[in-house]
Amino acid sequence: MLKLPALVDVHVHVREPGQTHKEDWDSVTQAALAGGIATILAMPNTQPPVFDGATLDLALNAAKEKARCDYAQFVGAGPTNASVVAALAPKAAGLKMYLDSTFGELRLDDMTLWTPHFQQFPKSAPMVMHAESRTLAAAILFSAMYDRPIHIAHVSLREEILLVKAAKERGLKVTCEVCPHHLFLTKSETPSGFAEVRPRLATQADVDSLWANLDVIDCFATDHAPHTRAEKEAQNPPPGFPGLETILPLLLTAASEGRITIEQIVEKMRVNPQRIFNLPEQPKTWIEIDENVQYEIRAAESFTRCGWTPFEGWRVKGKVRKVVLRGKTAFEDGQILAQAGSGRNVRLDYPQLEASPHILG
Amino acid sequence: MLKLPALVDVHVHVREPGQTHKEDWDSVTQAALAGGIATILAMPNTQPPVFDGATLDLALNAAKEKARCDYAQFVGAGPTNASVVAALAPKAAGLKMYLDSTFGELRLDDMTLWTPHFQQFPKSAPMVMHAESRTLAAAILFSAMYDRPIHIAHVSLREEILLVKAAKERGLKVTCEVCPHHLFLTKSETPSGFAEVRPRLATQADVDSLWANLDVIDCFATDHAPHTRAEKEAQNPPPGFPGLETILPLLLTAASEGRITIEQIVEKMRVNPQRIFNLPEQPKTWIEIDENVQYEIRAAESFTRCGWTPFEGWRVKGKVRKVVLRGKTAFEDGQILAQAGSGRNVRLDYPQLEASPHILG
Repeated sequence: MLKLPALVDVHVHVREPGQTHKEDWDSVTQAALAGGIATILAMPNTQPPVFDGATLDLALNAAKEKARCDYAQFVGAGPTNASVVAALAPKAAGLKMYLDSTFGELRLDDMTLWTPHFQQFPKSAPMVMHAESRTLAAAILFSAMYDRPIHIAHVSLREEILLVKAAKERGLKVTCEVCPHHLFLTKSETPSGFAEVRPRLATQADVDSLWANLDVIDCFATDHAPHTRAEKEAQNPPPGFPGLETILPLLLTAASEGRITIEQIVEKMRVNPQRIFNLPEQPKTWIEIDENVQYEIRAAESFTRCGWTPFEGWRVKGKVRKVVLRGKTAFEDGQILAQAGSGRNVRLDYPQLEASPHILG
Repeated sequence: MLKLPALVDVHVHVREPGQTHKEDWDSVTQAALAGGIATILAMPNTQPPVFDGATLDLALNAAKEKARCDYAQFVGAGPTNASVVAALAPKAAGLKMYLDSTFGELRLDDMTLWTPHFQQFPKSAPMVMHAESRTLAAAILFSAMYDRPIHIAHVSLREEILLVKAAKERGLKVTCEVCPHHLFLTKSETPSGFAEVRPRLATQADVDSLWANLDVIDCFATDHAPHTRAEKEAQNPPPGFPGLETILPLLLTAASEGRITIEQIVEKMRVNPQRIFNLPEQPKTWIEIDENVQYEIRAAESFTRCGWTPFEGWRVKGKVRKVVLRGKTAFEDGQILAQAGSGRNVRLDYPQLEASPHILG
């Protein structure tokens, strides 16, 4: 039995408010706990999107009522809300900027709309970019010009990881995450509707490049983005995969094959997320893993509401047996024990830590 | 009568080798002289493109035989020719990189292909980018990371000129050019086939932003890109406008309206191009302009082979009367007097200047 720090997923689509048929704060935090994850950072492209005080309250009220693990909620950058979201920074996981394929209130059509966010969002608060390919390079330029750290979501391409590497070598303040589906799947492997995800699944050369540059990857994050099986099987399936319950078994399996170490998993799912996103220590919190049990991934046995996984039937080695969160067993042997509402907002509900230099002032 | 230094156009598509029905080194240099331009820098996307020693020789041999004004020829960046073009730098105008909408031998599909050029092309030699919108930002990031100057071709958008401005304010080594069609036309003004140009004609807000940021614009350049009238009137017309004979009358007209000064025209079409592109002084060389004559632009009276202009019928004020190139009258009162082959390659045929620190070693 392996005892590890509880993990953090810095990239989760909770779907509440607005699309609770796909997922909500209850089901998503159950899925997190079952995956060995005790803190999730929730993305703001809900319905409505979280882009001002009222919509942030909407999400946080649902979380407060339902969440079974710890969490924080991102606010989203829009064309006219730079000062509004800057003022919300202490309550938020950070600022999410959708720089590719944006829509609605979070649409940032041209780079002039990026500038006020780079100028106004507090430099000590996390800023996360959906920025693919050359848009990623543009985001790094803005980071350099405005001298503030940025975190790049879901790096998937060889050109992206090599650019992040080159930028880091020059001291630029960029960190990045990689998703399990970009580490374990290619565009040629999955059936069409279920292959739709953004960034798209890439080539074997891209996948190989991610594995060859593990030291450049700061975080593993799921980009857990549940849609129902019916939605994925329809015409024009929406992009996105669930991931909370499969990321750790997949990584443990890679560890059993010698492709990665347990220390690297902890570094990229606890140590680095905690540092990059200014997360508090969770006292008396850990997970217990049976490293040796082998089994097949089954969506039917999962807690996410979406009811499918791109890794259905994959044979993995390593299973989460127990999650202890702040002294209480939250998950054990397939059973969720944490109560709805027992999750804490890591920005607002860890008051003893607010004075720490690691925490936003 | 106004006497000015002879002008430089740093962005000209000569169409030779390969498409001499549109233009060749003879007709294009006649058009240049008629426009008050005594030096042109020729783009490498000919047929074949200029991307190695043999194709550079092909272009330079045609130029040597036919050119009536001074010139240099760019080499084009391709996926595998970084060391080849780096070695050709002393003979070339500079390196042109097509970072958007590329094709054939000059295709640079992903950013990993940019890197060897930034690493290997001599830092003292000009590097020019076709890089629109966020690709422009990516190019500036590469300039910053590899610490070398870049020149941005045909800036057309508000977001682009404001980004160049912000980059310059931070000391980044970026210069830029703007084309007359982006200063004088919008996408709503020109008939469809004749509106096709890359970068596309933009909005009035974009045009206004270029005029409001004249101090950010280092060069005016034509992007003279002739296609025949029949080609432009066909289905899927190729993008590109002629410009050599209309740029100066348009700018002189703007000067007569108080929108720009004669000094700014000289700065952006002689002083800055000479500095940015390491061009030699042309001894005993000047142009003479009648500032007060008013007339309508007529393609029928032009020397370019393409036979049309997007500015047909525009009423302008200011006409080139005479061009004296290295002591000889090359153009006077509508007549080309310079002989084919009298043009000099500014990189190879100014031997007395090769030891100057302004010239490539």
